[in-house]
Amino acid sequence: MSSPTLATVDINKIYAQVQQFYAGQVRHLDTMRAEEFAGSFTADGVFDHRPGADPLVGRKAIAAAIREYQTTRHAADPVQRRHWFNMLQVFPQDDGALRTEYYAVVLQTRPGVSEPMVGPSCFVTDTLVFEDGELRTRFRKVSPDYVV
Amino acid sequence: MSSPTLATVDINKIYAQVQQFYAGQVRHLDTMRAEEFAGSFTADGVFDHRPGADPLVGRKAIAAAIREYQTTRHAADPVQRRHWFNMLQVFPQDDGALRTEYYAVVLQTRPGVSEPMVGPSCFVTDTLVFEDGELRTRFRKVSPDYVV
Amino acid sequence: MSSPTLATVDINKIYAQVQQFYAGQVRHLDTMRAEEFAGSFTADGVFDHRPGADPLVGRKAIAAAIREYQTTRHAADPVQRRHWFNMLQVFPQDDGALRTEYYAVVLQTRPGVSEPMVGPSCFVTDTLVFEDGELRTRFRKVSPDYVV
Repeated sequence: MSSPTLATVDINKIYAQVQQFYAGQVRHLDTMRAEEFAGSFTADGVFDHRPGADPLVGRKAIAAAIREYQTTRHAADPVQRRHWFNMLQVFPQDDGALRTEYYAVVLQTRPGVSEPMVGPSCFVTDTLVFEDGELRTRFRKVSPDYVV
Repeated sequence: MSSPTLATVDINKIYAQVQQFYAGQVRHLDTMRAEEFAGSFTADGVFDHRPGADPLVGRKAIAAAIREYQTTRHAADPVQRRHWFNMLQVFPQDDGALRTEYYAVVLQTRPGVSEPMVGPSCFVTDTLVFEDGELRTRFRKVSPDYVV
Repeated sequence: MSSPTLATVDINKIYAQVQQFYAGQVRHLDTMRAEEFAGSFTADGVFDHRPGADPLVGRKAIAAAIREYQTTRHAADPVQRRHWFNMLQVFPQDDGALRTEYYAVVLQTRPGVSEPMVGPSCFVTDTLVFEDGELRTRFRKVSPDYVV
């Protein structure tokens, strides 16, 4: 058995921070805090959230999409969404950014119904950067598994 | 890009320990080891496990609730429960305690049925403390998403 | 409150590396990269993947099983599989190996169907070893919850 390489040691120094960042970002999303969720992206952040739709570019567009969801689909069908991320890979880049890849699925619970709807299952790639010591998403692409 | 702050470095030093603690605690729960599960709480631990029910206070009450589940609901419908936690946030407190927030869902498998029942989806907040270097739950509140 | 023990500090130094290893291994599995998945096991690795079936021994057998899945079941029903692992415990052994225990579930998405099939839910035990600083699986036993 040989020692862990520098790269793997680095993962142990950064991985939890990425997980904690995602947990906080998702909490904003699932409680529809539009400004806070948009603020977890960089000012020029790109959120390529759905195949066939234009990517959302910048915090204003991202926040607007959350509010649009809240006032239309959520108002008509007030599910509690819970985004779950898993099987996270973090790839530190030479410029200090972090490329990540992970699985995501949404659990959606209707009031009074204990069993949530599950899905869609997605594959997601992000680019994260540090701004004043805080992680931000600079780019996100979500690829639902059912779209082929 | 700036350096990670002290707070974020700390997360990388404690986060995995919290994850490992939860994995062990959940293993006790899902195999109905009542005393071991209760022992993962502090002696005066509070487990506010269900809206509308009184919180369980202390290890004796917590262990009794596990045994009650085992001899009644589980005896009548012997599902294998698997508690999944995800999207964990750990907030170190000034007094050394850790406040945590996370999502939880239960997968329940009936003998011979490959597809588990999924749910309920819950939001959970804990207070964890160290006792002799080991984490213990001092307080837990479980909020199922379907209860509004 | 006392300090974390040496053992718990060690977990914070290795846990993320194990999570990242599993994420990469699972990516190979879910995209049916047979050689790469087999290469994440040791040369003599044992994959006890199904009750009632002989364990797969060695990379050749493991890769063959992935190709067999691809050309038969997947060809007939081209689902996108996503393996999710959770509630991971890592137990460092005296010889430098890592024993792990965790839950696993498979999400399977059919083309055009947004809701995935969920299951089976499994309990998995592994032995991991370092080879040239990289983790490899030396032994894996998968126990589906529905098989009793």
